[in-house]
Amino acid sequence: MDASSSDTPNRAGGRSSRREKRKLHVPSMLPTLESRLPLTEPMDEDQIARIDDASMSILEDVGVVFRDPVALDDWRSAGARVEGDLVKFDRAHIRSLISSIPETITLHARNPENTIGLGGRKSMFIPMTGAPYLRDLDDDRRLPTLNDLGMFHKLAHMSPALHSSAHHIVEPMDHPVPHRHLQITYSSMKYSDKTFMGMTTSGKNGEDVMDMCDILFGAGYLEDHAVVVGNINGNSPLVWDETMLGAMRAFVRRNQPVLCSPFVLGGANTPASTVPAVAQLNAEALSALAYTQVVRKGAPAIYGHYLSTVSMRSGAPMAGTPEISLMNFMIGQMARFYGVPWRTSNTLGGAKTLDAQAGYESATTLMAVLMAGANYIWHSAGWNEAGMHCSVAKFMVDAEQCAMGYRMAEGLRWDDFDEALSAIRDIGPGGHYLGHAHTLENFERAFFMPSLFDNNSFEQWQAEGAQDVTARALSMARQMLNEYEEPKLDVAINDALLDYIARREREIPEDKGLNETY
Amino acid sequence: MDASSSDTPNRAGGRSSRREKRKLHVPSMLPTLESRLPLTEPMDEDQIARIDDASMSILEDVGVVFRDPVALDDWRSAGARVEGDLVKFDRAHIRSLISSIPETITLHARNPENTIGLGGRKSMFIPMTGAPYLRDLDDDRRLPTLNDLGMFHKLAHMSPALHSSAHHIVEPMDHPVPHRHLQITYSSMKYSDKTFMGMTTSGKNGEDVMDMCDILFGAGYLEDHAVVVGNINGNSPLVWDETMLGAMRAFVRRNQPVLCSPFVLGGANTPASTVPAVAQLNAEALSALAYTQVVRKGAPAIYGHYLSTVSMRSGAPMAGTPEISLMNFMIGQMARFYGVPWRTSNTLGGAKTLDAQAGYESATTLMAVLMAGANYIWHSAGWNEAGMHCSVAKFMVDAEQCAMGYRMAEGLRWDDFDEALSAIRDIGPGGHYLGHAHTLENFERAFFMPSLFDNNSFEQWQAEGAQDVTARALSMARQMLNEYEEPKLDVAINDALLDYIARREREIPEDKGLNETY
Repeated sequence: MDASSSDTPNRAGGRSSRREKRKLHVPSMLPTLESRLPLTEPMDEDQIARIDDASMSILEDVGVVFRDPVALDDWRSAGARVEGDLVKFDRAHIRSLISSIPETITLHARNPENTIGLGGRKSMFIPMTGAPYLRDLDDDRRLPTLNDLGMFHKLAHMSPALHSSAHHIVEPMDHPVPHRHLQITYSSMKYSDKTFMGMTTSGKNGEDVMDMCDILFGAGYLEDHAVVVGNINGNSPLVWDETMLGAMRAFVRRNQPVLCSPFVLGGANTPASTVPAVAQLNAEALSALAYTQVVRKGAPAIYGHYLSTVSMRSGAPMAGTPEISLMNFMIGQMARFYGVPWRTSNTLGGAKTLDAQAGYESATTLMAVLMAGANYIWHSAGWNEAGMHCSVAKFMVDAEQCAMGYRMAEGLRWDDFDEALSAIRDIGPGGHYLGHAHTLENFERAFFMPSLFDNNSFEQWQAEGAQDVTARALSMARQMLNEYEEPKLDVAINDALLDYIARREREIPEDKGLNETY
Repeated sequence: MDASSSDTPNRAGGRSSRREKRKLHVPSMLPTLESRLPLTEPMDEDQIARIDDASMSILEDVGVVFRDPVALDDWRSAGARVEGDLVKFDRAHIRSLISSIPETITLHARNPENTIGLGGRKSMFIPMTGAPYLRDLDDDRRLPTLNDLGMFHKLAHMSPALHSSAHHIVEPMDHPVPHRHLQITYSSMKYSDKTFMGMTTSGKNGEDVMDMCDILFGAGYLEDHAVVVGNINGNSPLVWDETMLGAMRAFVRRNQPVLCSPFVLGGANTPASTVPAVAQLNAEALSALAYTQVVRKGAPAIYGHYLSTVSMRSGAPMAGTPEISLMNFMIGQMARFYGVPWRTSNTLGGAKTLDAQAGYESATTLMAVLMAGANYIWHSAGWNEAGMHCSVAKFMVDAEQCAMGYRMAEGLRWDDFDEALSAIRDIGPGGHYLGHAHTLENFERAFFMPSLFDNNSFEQWQAEGAQDVTARALSMARQMLNEYEEPKLDVAINDALLDYIARREREIPEDKGLNETY
């Protein structure tokens, strides 16, 4: 929308044009979140040193398994002690390696207005990814298609607090596994001009993502610009596998940032205790972060993790528990101690529908990760059922909650303080502020008004159909999709991307497994 | 339950007795929460001084209306400037008065094991009060009875993280208004032996509460022991009324703590801006806190408030918004600056059912008030529909969430650190911890396992009836009520209380209004 055009005489001005504006969801993105709230830091310097020492001892004495011959060769050349597939490290070596990781990253979007920073006090929100099911616009739980994925990319594009369209928010089950990374990457690029993520299902797939980024951004651009984020998961305790490491190399060689994410099921693959679990996770993250610098010194990399605790009753992963909040606080301190940007997970949870459980779990984690100072806040919209489905309704609510969290993290605003104190004197005891000039000028920006939460009376709510938040969110999603405008790709770039995909789909057999190094 | 009796030979011992224990909800209470997490303090010393100065200027220049001849006389005698019903204060006078408020309070319960501290880093959770409707054990929304109130007092009694049975959690609509305070107080005393709250619907009603406390605790006990907490609400901006002030005096004269709570509808009765709204609220709270010390120097008193922001769309109060979190952080700093314990509200929200909105709103506020360091955390269970109903299901979920928040606020546990590091060495890369001795010894206390949240697979959840969290919570409430054991009152005390109530019910006409000074 061209804002200036509404003032031209041949357009309907005044009230009708304002009404029109109110109807439209203009897809503007909130800039990089620069938190001004003090962070929650439960460890003092000695305790940070104690975790660091424990992690370094694990790296020195226990070691980490790299199930990948290339990585083992790399480590051997780099001077680590390699015993079979077990690698042991000197702490000085680890410290020296991670010291070349940049403290902050500028992540470039194809629309330069959507370029964003992370690291230090800079943060961004990224929607969930990886769901094998979705709850759709009718809240039906079913297998997703590429069209469904496109829908989520559109919703991410239009949600102001989401700074990325991510990648496979849902798995496009209507496409063969070995071709999916191509379709997913194209969908991220096509339906949004925000930043996005790249598939790390194998080294070869990672290289395809790099090639497609070359087409989108131009040859040579990646060398000096981070444009796509990958994720690799560890097999805790203390194992990294070939698929993940191959994908990591594809990204890191091209100077693209990778999240180095141990996968914690607290109590199952870590000790049953929060503080020592962090010591193990920290050792795991450091080993992968160090490896990024073996592959390419100075390449951006992000301290990551997936955090859950395990229910002793069912063996299921839990979210929104006090220990996850505490671990987030601690890990934030460790990442800042090493001077590396860090990724956490946001609105994780195990509910099967967008019920109150989902709300409690998600909001608890959102508050915790903001207070922990996370930089790359992944899984920020749509996650439910332990990641088994992405819910359209929850995507909408989560995205709005991120906007609210964003506002909180911005901290206090003092710019109208004296003016507002004058209003207090004007109104005096027993008055009300609704008509005061300060109120009229400041109300819209003063208090966040969530669109998806109903605060009307019970009677009015009943008269309007007694809709629950799921119904309201789905209605809002339909409205947004009706009003979606595609941020068009340059025709030549679009054609080149489609040519690339067509060629690779011819080259890659449809029946290759997901983890083949294609 | 007598824990020792399970070891006697005539009881079934071993596994069967353990199974029996697991079935029972033993009504043990978590002790005073002593938070070890660092608090969220967004203001530096200069900013705190700026709020303080602004509030003191309001008290000096604008003044506060006390719509109560007794209070006006008291202020005149105390040396304040009284102009009609407007009172203006010197800041030195205010500072001098509030300096005699104790920084911490020990709140005594009739069961000494349930006595609790608040103030400084000590906190307690108190259920909601004041709902004119309930959502009952069938989730039906209807008018409450005295039996319903008793049910909530029982549930509060059995919820470990709730430290009080409060007072009129729901309004007992089957009793005439002028008699309710008697029935409510008796119900709080009878069904729970935790601390409780006292009705402040008038000065005379407050005196009835004091008389009943004399019966429960013995004559003279109140003089040196805080046993019951009252609440008075201001009419913001800058007005206190006769009903509230009369009730306050009834409590304060008997050395019982009162929450001095401005009632903030941000943007309607305060400026439309968080920081100046806090300056006004702070002035209001200080004026009432100071008055407690005019009534009785050294009496305990609590900095209070009810906080909402107003939707510009509907005029309705909102909860869980970023500005409410920010105001909580600020108010915590101000209360600590003055050295006065402070009360906040916890799980406020506007949802009509226990849907996801209720979950997001409640969890956001729970996290914010814990991070803000609130001492008397009121409305911690059951609140929904902007306080219009108390929900049994939400009461259960909120109470469990408080237990989770309690665990988080306790902070990190380092006592098993070295032992757990040994486990990491034992297990090594690629193993799992489930069978390790450290895991078996520590699991139960390591990770909080919420009873009311479902983390099973979708298929198992479906097979078990696809229950949502509301159904699970109501089922748990029924189970708890089946297992409830009344903490019996001494027969003579019980008779004396019933005699008192009978006499007062004869004395007080049924058709007297709620706010008559009876």
